[in-house]
Amino acid sequence: MQRIDLLLTDCRAATMVAGGEPYGAIEDAAVAIDGGRIVWIGPRADLPEFSPINTARLDGRWITPGLVDCHTHLVFGGDRIGEFEARLGGTTYEEIAKAGGGIRSSVAATRAADEAELIRRGRRRLANFVAEGVTTIEIKSGYGLDPEAELKMLRAARYLDGDVRVVTSFLGLHAVPKDQDRDAYVSQMIDEVLPRAAAEGLADIVDAYLEGIAFTPDEVSRLFDKAKALGLPVRLHADQLTDGGGAALAAKHGALSADHLEYTGQAGVEALAKAGTVAVLLPGAFVALAETQKPPVEALRAAGADMAVASDCNPGTSPLLSLRAAMHLACVQFKLTPEEAIAGATRNAAKALGLAAETGTLEVGKLADIAVWDIERPAELCYWLGGALLHKSWRAGRPIVTRN
Amino acid sequence: MQRIDLLLTDCRAATMVAGGEPYGAIEDAAVAIDGGRIVWIGPRADLPEFSPINTARLDGRWITPGLVDCHTHLVFGGDRIGEFEARLGGTTYEEIAKAGGGIRSSVAATRAADEAELIRRGRRRLANFVAEGVTTIEIKSGYGLDPEAELKMLRAARYLDGDVRVVTSFLGLHAVPKDQDRDAYVSQMIDEVLPRAAAEGLADIVDAYLEGIAFTPDEVSRLFDKAKALGLPVRLHADQLTDGGGAALAAKHGALSADHLEYTGQAGVEALAKAGTVAVLLPGAFVALAETQKPPVEALRAAGADMAVASDCNPGTSPLLSLRAAMHLACVQFKLTPEEAIAGATRNAAKALGLAAETGTLEVGKLADIAVWDIERPAELCYWLGGALLHKSWRAGRPIVTRN
Ligand SMILES: [Zn+2]
Ligand SMILES: [Zn+2]
Repeated sequence: MQRIDLLLTDCRAATMVAGGEPYGAIEDAAVAIDGGRIVWIGPRADLPEFSPINTARLDGRWITPGLVDCHTHLVFGGDRIGEFEARLGGTTYEEIAKAGGGIRSSVAATRAADEAELIRRGRRRLANFVAEGVTTIEIKSGYGLDPEAELKMLRAARYLDGDVRVVTSFLGLHAVPKDQDRDAYVSQMIDEVLPRAAAEGLADIVDAYLEGIAFTPDEVSRLFDKAKALGLPVRLHADQLTDGGGAALAAKHGALSADHLEYTGQAGVEALAKAGTVAVLLPGAFVALAETQKPPVEALRAAGADMAVASDCNPGTSPLLSLRAAMHLACVQFKLTPEEAIAGATRNAAKALGLAAETGTLEVGKLADIAVWDIERPAELCYWLGGALLHKSWRAGRPIVTRN
Repeated sequence: MQRIDLLLTDCRAATMVAGGEPYGAIEDAAVAIDGGRIVWIGPRADLPEFSPINTARLDGRWITPGLVDCHTHLVFGGDRIGEFEARLGGTTYEEIAKAGGGIRSSVAATRAADEAELIRRGRRRLANFVAEGVTTIEIKSGYGLDPEAELKMLRAARYLDGDVRVVTSFLGLHAVPKDQDRDAYVSQMIDEVLPRAAAEGLADIVDAYLEGIAFTPDEVSRLFDKAKALGLPVRLHADQLTDGGGAALAAKHGALSADHLEYTGQAGVEALAKAGTVAVLLPGAFVALAETQKPPVEALRAAGADMAVASDCNPGTSPLLSLRAAMHLACVQFKLTPEEAIAGATRNAAKALGLAAETGTLEVGKLADIAVWDIERPAELCYWLGGALLHKSWRAGRPIVTRN
């Protein structure tokens, strides 16, 4: 009889495996876990005889893949709460910018903070995601905007790997820092900082912000070529404020994902679908900024593009401490179905991070990243805004959180 | 030396007392509590000599009045998750209604549930509000729509009073039940059920839904006249889908509050301000229904009307398990300032429940309903969507939740 580390039983599984039942559901399921991976999953009636060291009876609860938040700026110094207050009190964006507000204030505070401070504050934010079943989270640099501060952000993000798996993205091309020569900055990030980040193993992915107010297609292409030379995958903040051809550019470079996409046109949608580049939707910023231009969800669905949903947790435009809130907003505001939103925070989010083979579904061979929920059906994860629904979770077979 | 039950010290207090500092703030405050009430509050430097049985040093944390959620439908049977899923999957409202969905499905499930079941499920939902610092919550009937089921809902709501103070509203005039004579139904609710609820002490407030699809001004006036005869205050769901003159009608009856108000015109706004009727804003439904007509916040502010913010927790139109989520949405979508949103979930919400003398601010003589927060400044309560920010809370000097 095969000895295994852990047997989960008496549960309903939303495996999120595509192509079969809605949510890939298995009623009355069992899951066998060994060496941190799923070694068997199926209807309990078909369970082979295992000899488990531990057994968890889940009282009929639903299990899903651990949630994956594939786009955050969770590590940053300072806060922008005063700016939030000032804007709602009638201060204009121009006045805030003049007073050193906006992204510049996050850059100044991030540069001023030491690594321990970034870790301490990042860990507090991260705890909220862990408590709602997130087992993998992506964290970007991009508030340092100088060599040491960018690398410091990436080190802090790496350090946060623990209960939750952290995937890092180098986002040196997030904004041109104040009072700095643009070309020199771009070259420094591409030719000096990115290679250092790669050499130190600090960056899993290379990201950039393509926009009229940020970086051009040429600059992004140079960055992406360097990433390719270093063996790193790429992704892109694209078409958030204008259709800058970002989706097509990301697709052309075989990017893992293109993110935001509010202004992406039909050509961009088709390019994403064809390239297998995941469309990452970020409804938190859409709601927090009271925007009205929504991403082309119907076109993405029709083209067969994979859609993901992320919190975009950041201090300026998307102050979300909850991936489930983003899932709710993706449904009610962008009209994703609950199944699409959950796939967007599991299977497709894992794909957006290059982890499709490791996590994002409950399948034999994948890591045992599993969330157990106090819910009546999977859609409930998207239905409620707020609420503590998580019962328990595991990262690679290791227990993370227990509640009740 | 005066002996007191509890001394809070080493904290910053957002007292939410109007007219002075923003948020009624006291830096480095102390609070003396005895017999469940605040007996002294002020700068620690001015603290008289007390002899406290217990002392809580709060390490510089912010305290606020315990939050007050002044509009919820938290007690109900069944759920509407399948309907949420079907709508996002493309099923029309008509098809859902034909299949017995919409409010009718909540009515059927609420009638079918016994009181213990309503309590059990209500308690689980309520725990989420308690965990975010709510110390007073209003809960309505209105899914029973027959005498026994309406009274059962009110009893369940009363039973939930415990860690959190529950205020009940009788909402028999929520919808006309299927296959029932309208006039007979209205008369039964007014002449039979409301008096029974009053006699049994089950209703603190009388509420109604004024709308083309619900009840008329005449019907509401009859109900409100009966409430007055029974010595009960009134409030009204008004102008959510059309300007039905609801705000003015509420003001004319001296209502505690008029709620929703998306379509309220200038005359209604002025009537509310003049009557001292609180304008209760419900951004959860606005966002969950992807509405575009916003309540007249600028006009309400200009007229000097008191504004409150509530979760409207309900299974159909506002599936919120978080008052803080409503506060965030009131800021980013309705453009309330953070101070207005916090006043809307403390001082003005207490006023909307007729509890202005008892709770809603930190003042001598009021109940010691207090929330302690892990935040840097009060606006942070509105800034984040999601996140566990509460450190501890007290209802009338009794500790409720401890975290950290
Ligand atoms: Zn971003
Ligand atoms: Zn309501």
